[in-house]
Amino acid sequence: MAGWIYWLDLAGVIVFALSGVIIACRSRMDPFGMLVLAAMTGIGGGTLRDLLLGIRPVFWVTDPTYLWVIIITVVSSIVGFHYIHRLSRIVLPVLDAFGLAIFTIIGAHKALALGHGGTVAVLMGLLTGVAGGMLRDVLARRVPMVLRQEIYATASIAGAWTYVILYSQPIHPYATIALPILVILGLRLSAIYWRLS
Amino acid sequence: MAGWIYWLDLAGVIVFALSGVIIACRSRMDPFGMLVLAAMTGIGGGTLRDLLLGIRPVFWVTDPTYLWVIIITVVSSIVGFHYIHRLSRIVLPVLDAFGLAIFTIIGAHKALALGHGGTVAVLMGLLTGVAGGMLRDVLARRVPMVLRQEIYATASIAGAWTYVILYSQPIHPYATIALPILVILGLRLSAIYWRLS
Amino acid sequence: MAGWIYWLDLAGVIVFALSGVIIACRSRMDPFGMLVLAAMTGIGGGTLRDLLLGIRPVFWVTDPTYLWVIIITVVSSIVGFHYIHRLSRIVLPVLDAFGLAIFTIIGAHKALALGHGGTVAVLMGLLTGVAGGMLRDVLARRVPMVLRQEIYATASIAGAWTYVILYSQPIHPYATIALPILVILGLRLSAIYWRLS
Repeated sequence: MAGWIYWLDLAGVIVFALSGVIIACRSRMDPFGMLVLAAMTGIGGGTLRDLLLGIRPVFWVTDPTYLWVIIITVVSSIVGFHYIHRLSRIVLPVLDAFGLAIFTIIGAHKALALGHGGTVAVLMGLLTGVAGGMLRDVLARRVPMVLRQEIYATASIAGAWTYVILYSQPIHPYATIALPILVILGLRLSAIYWRLS
Repeated sequence: MAGWIYWLDLAGVIVFALSGVIIACRSRMDPFGMLVLAAMTGIGGGTLRDLLLGIRPVFWVTDPTYLWVIIITVVSSIVGFHYIHRLSRIVLPVLDAFGLAIFTIIGAHKALALGHGGTVAVLMGLLTGVAGGMLRDVLARRVPMVLRQEIYATASIAGAWTYVILYSQPIHPYATIALPILVILGLRLSAIYWRLS
Repeated sequence: MAGWIYWLDLAGVIVFALSGVIIACRSRMDPFGMLVLAAMTGIGGGTLRDLLLGIRPVFWVTDPTYLWVIIITVVSSIVGFHYIHRLSRIVLPVLDAFGLAIFTIIGAHKALALGHGGTVAVLMGLLTGVAGGMLRDVLARRVPMVLRQEIYATASIAGAWTYVILYSQPIHPYATIALPILVILGLRLSAIYWRLS
C-alpha cells in the first residue's frame, strides 16, 4: 500500500500545483510567482504536517522528486498557457476538491503510521488538506476556500474520520483509501454542484 | 513540580482559547472560525517554541488532551454565548495577562529544562507568551497587543528573567513559579489599571 | 573552512539586521519594533532552513551569539541613529545584496554538508537568502524585493548552483566560497547600477 500512497501523493501535488498556477494566472503573476504559488499549494500542507509530527527532514528534502514534479507542472502550464486561460470557472474548485481529498487521507495516514491516535490523525488530515490551499489564497489575496465554504473543512474531517475507522479494520487496503476519498469528493462535489456552499 | 507545570499549561490554554473565542465573537466569525482562532491562540505559541527548540513531535501531538481542552472550551463558550457576549471590555486584557504570565514561565522552563542558557530561555518565554496572541490578533485583523502596548513585551521579558534567576536558587519550587507570574501579572494588570499602555 | 562559514554567517546577520533597522526607521517603528524586524531579517531565513532540514534545535538556540549580535547591532544603530537616518537610498539595496549572497551560500552549504543533493541545496540557498528579507518587507507592509525585482531570485539561484558545482571540485576552499558570492553580488549590484530590475 505504501506505493499507492506515494503515487497518490504525487498526483495530489500535481493537482494542487495546477490550482496554484490557475490562481497565479488570474492574479497576473509572472512565471516566478507561478512557481512560488504552485510550490506553496503543492507542498505547503505536507510541510506543515511533517514539521508538527517531527518528521525530519520534511518529505521533499528526503525525496526531491516532489520539487521536480512542481517545476514540470508549472513549465507544462506555461507552454499550454492559452489552454489554462480558457478553462471554465468550474475546473479550479474540482481540482481543489481532488487535492483536498488526497492530502487529507495522506495526512491522516502518516499520523496513524507513526502510532498517533485518532484525534491527532484527523487534525493532521485536515491541516495537510487545507493548509496548502489556504497559503495559496492568502498569497493571492483571496478569501481562503476553507473560510468561505462551509462544507470544506467538514468534508475533510468526515473523510479523515472515515479513514481512521477503516484503518484498523480487516478490509482490502484499496477500499481503506478509496472510501474516505469518495466521502470527501462526494461532499465537496455535491456542494459545488448544488451551490450549497 | 512537573505536575504543576502541566496543570498550569492547561489553564493557560483555556484562558488563551477563551480570549480567542471572545475576539472571534467580536469579528462575527462562525463556530469553525472560533475553533481556529481558539486553537491558534491556545497552542500557537507553544507550537512555535517546540519547533524552534527541536522538541518533536510538538506537545499537542504527544498529548492530544490539549486539543480536547480547546474543543471543550469552544463548545462551552457557544453554549454560554449570551454570557460571553455581555462580558465587559476589561475581561479580554485580563484573560490575556494571565495567559501571557503562564505561557512565559512555561516557555522559559522548557528551555532551561533542556539545558539551554538564560538568553534562549528568556526569548522562548517571550515567544511562547506572545506568539499565540499575536496570531489571534493578526487573523482577526487587529493590531497585535504586543505592538500596541509598551508594557506587554517588557512584562514578559521581566518575568522570564525572574524565572531564570530563581530556577537555580535553593528556594521552594512553588515560589519559583509563583514569583515570576506575579511579576508579569503585576506589570500587566497595573498597566491596564493605570492605562499606562 | 567551517570557521570561515561561521564568521561569514555572523557578518550576514549583521548586514541583514541593519537592513531591518533601516526599514523599521522608515516605517517609524519604536526600538522594540526595530529589534523584532532586525531579528526576523537576520535569522528568519536560517530558522526556516533549519526547520525544513530537520536541524534541531535551530542554530541560534544552539549558539545564542547570533541573538547578541542582533541586540548589539540594534543598540549601536539607535546610538548612531542620526547617521543611519541620513544614509542614501542606495545603502539598503547594497546591504541586502551582501546579505543575499552570504546567506545563499550558507544555505546551500548546510544542505550539501548534510548529504542532500543539488536540487535541495539550491532551494535551501534560495530560501535562506530570500526568506529573511521577505519577512522584513511583509512586516513593514512593503512589496518584497524578491517579487519586485526580477534579478533577485535569479541571482540567488545562479550563485547556489555555482556553489553546488564547485563544492565537489578539487579547488581551494576560499575560491569555493568567494566565486559564488561574486556571482550573486555581480548580478545584484549590476542590476541595481543599471536599474535593470
